[in-house]
Amino acid sequence: MSKRLGRSTVALADPPSVIGSACVVGKKEGEGPLKESFDLIQPDTRFGESSWEKAESRMQALALEAAMQKAAVTTAALDYVFAGDLLNQCVGSSFALRDMGFPFLGLYGACSTMAEGLGLAAMMIDGGFANHTAAITSSHFCSAERQYRMPLEYGGQRTPTAQWTATAAGCAILAQGGSGPFVTHVTSGKIVDAGIKDANNMGAAMAPAACETLRSLFEETGFAPEDFDLIVTGDLARLGSRVVREMLLADGIDLGERYTDCGELIYDIERQDVHMGGSGCGCSAAVLCGYLLNGMRAGKWQRIVFAGTGALLSPLSSQQGESIPAICHAVILSNSR
Amino acid sequence: MSKRLGRSTVALADPPSVIGSACVVGKKEGEGPLKESFDLIQPDTRFGESSWEKAESRMQALALEAAMQKAAVTTAALDYVFAGDLLNQCVGSSFALRDMGFPFLGLYGACSTMAEGLGLAAMMIDGGFANHTAAITSSHFCSAERQYRMPLEYGGQRTPTAQWTATAAGCAILAQGGSGPFVTHVTSGKIVDAGIKDANNMGAAMAPAACETLRSLFEETGFAPEDFDLIVTGDLARLGSRVVREMLLADGIDLGERYTDCGELIYDIERQDVHMGGSGCGCSAAVLCGYLLNGMRAGKWQRIVFAGTGALLSPLSSQQGESIPAICHAVILSNSR
Repeated sequence: MSKRLGRSTVALADPPSVIGSACVVGKKEGEGPLKESFDLIQPDTRFGESSWEKAESRMQALALEAAMQKAAVTTAALDYVFAGDLLNQCVGSSFALRDMGFPFLGLYGACSTMAEGLGLAAMMIDGGFANHTAAITSSHFCSAERQYRMPLEYGGQRTPTAQWTATAAGCAILAQGGSGPFVTHVTSGKIVDAGIKDANNMGAAMAPAACETLRSLFEETGFAPEDFDLIVTGDLARLGSRVVREMLLADGIDLGERYTDCGELIYDIERQDVHMGGSGCGCSAAVLCGYLLNGMRAGKWQRIVFAGTGALLSPLSSQQGESIPAICHAVILSNSR
Repeated sequence: MSKRLGRSTVALADPPSVIGSACVVGKKEGEGPLKESFDLIQPDTRFGESSWEKAESRMQALALEAAMQKAAVTTAALDYVFAGDLLNQCVGSSFALRDMGFPFLGLYGACSTMAEGLGLAAMMIDGGFANHTAAITSSHFCSAERQYRMPLEYGGQRTPTAQWTATAAGCAILAQGGSGPFVTHVTSGKIVDAGIKDANNMGAAMAPAACETLRSLFEETGFAPEDFDLIVTGDLARLGSRVVREMLLADGIDLGERYTDCGELIYDIERQDVHMGGSGCGCSAAVLCGYLLNGMRAGKWQRIVFAGTGALLSPLSSQQGESIPAICHAVILSNSR
């Protein structure tokens, strides 16, 4: 009966498929290297709404709509929808998904939300509780800046280790059976606090959590990095991903060339003035729901690790002098069961 | 294979037990009618910490510790811990549970968090993914007031329909088998927005969501209100619970004398100056983890519905003129499987 491989990982008995996924982004993301993989690029920061927060909700609703169309399902088919975002009280999700008539389970995992939701959505199907589930999340540069940092109008300077919150949303719809990509394993993260207090260096704060989860995943599944075509964290960006690479190498785990990070993939870091790269729940969600899943469907990659990382701080916890607890949730996606 | 009874409800194949539960509260709650049911009453608002937010985290850690002791398990036995709270970015939970070494799944369900977490914690066991799981949540009057409303020092007046955020935390630990109380059914909520905009009248805003979930629960399980010894919502308080009673009566569902609400139970409403009654994630969590589960263990009630209600608004969404989306998650607890 037990599907547990160890402390953190479960192997799904009957791996569900991602039967549809979609992503919606803003102008800057649409000018980046992944532009071909997005379902909708909206040049209007407000998505036609009266505030950035409402724009963020609109983005989530658009991503859901596009994913449902690809999966050929309606809201009536969705047995559980897992969603969350970075806005206080996760209003990006609750306003996007109100009155849709499906059971809704709200999450808070900061930028690990897509990975957390995908894992739970897969387990709900494998556990016999659902036929169709969805995971959705979003972030918006403007709503995040004014909530976490400064009003945009202030024109505050960014430190070199800062990341750029992506304006993006992603939605993945899962079903029993199907033709893949399949969610075969779920490695759930532990909260790791390495004592870093610089809220402008999230990559470094989250890297130890990513190492912890990746180490558990390899140990518990018996897979080595070479067994994967791609190992993707999100969103550690340029600095954090280097820390992960070096920390794991010190443990004898060489991630090699197959390792990359959603925060590095989504922007052209040299040319788009994003400092270390992308961040925000929507960053890894949009990279997964477009570029990564499309690549798997096209046969470019057969088996990947998708590891979402989240910094579980708040502006208030930083003001109170606290360090930054972080978490990383991972799933293994494979074209074969 | 399918455990689904309908759109919202699943019947667990092998209902897990609550093998331990505990609750920790502040001074005011400890002066209320449920004082005998709390594991710890702390007269110091700060719980020995330097801020109310840190006090809230401390409360969660204390509730977890007490529940683990009763369940005779250690952190190493917990396969998944579901937690969340009302603080921005749910820092109450992430700071309470950092570095504990168990897989952590963050939730945001506002005051429905305990019910949401309990349902997921039960499904993780029934689905074969875990042997032991926990659901934890908290709220703190002082941290909630300054985040949602006014700094306490301002001494703002409260409107007659306001509720009082309980300073409380609750933790329930579940395991396969055991001797009960068992979680037999989980009814997950849909987001319902009835258009109410008064953030000082949460009871009315959440009542339609509670009706929706209770209606689904009765329809899908085939149970009638008479099949339960107690039907408890949390936290609609005096006004919201009256709305639920009347709305369901109009649908031909008479909840009768067995219906009550955690927000009404936790305080002596006439004497404790709490207006409509209690609210906050910790209110229903502490009432469940003490009074309700203790009563079931003592044989006072054999089968109950615990229905947690959450208002999915933020101060910003109210400032932007939005109405209040709400949700209600319910579980059926029974002394027999």
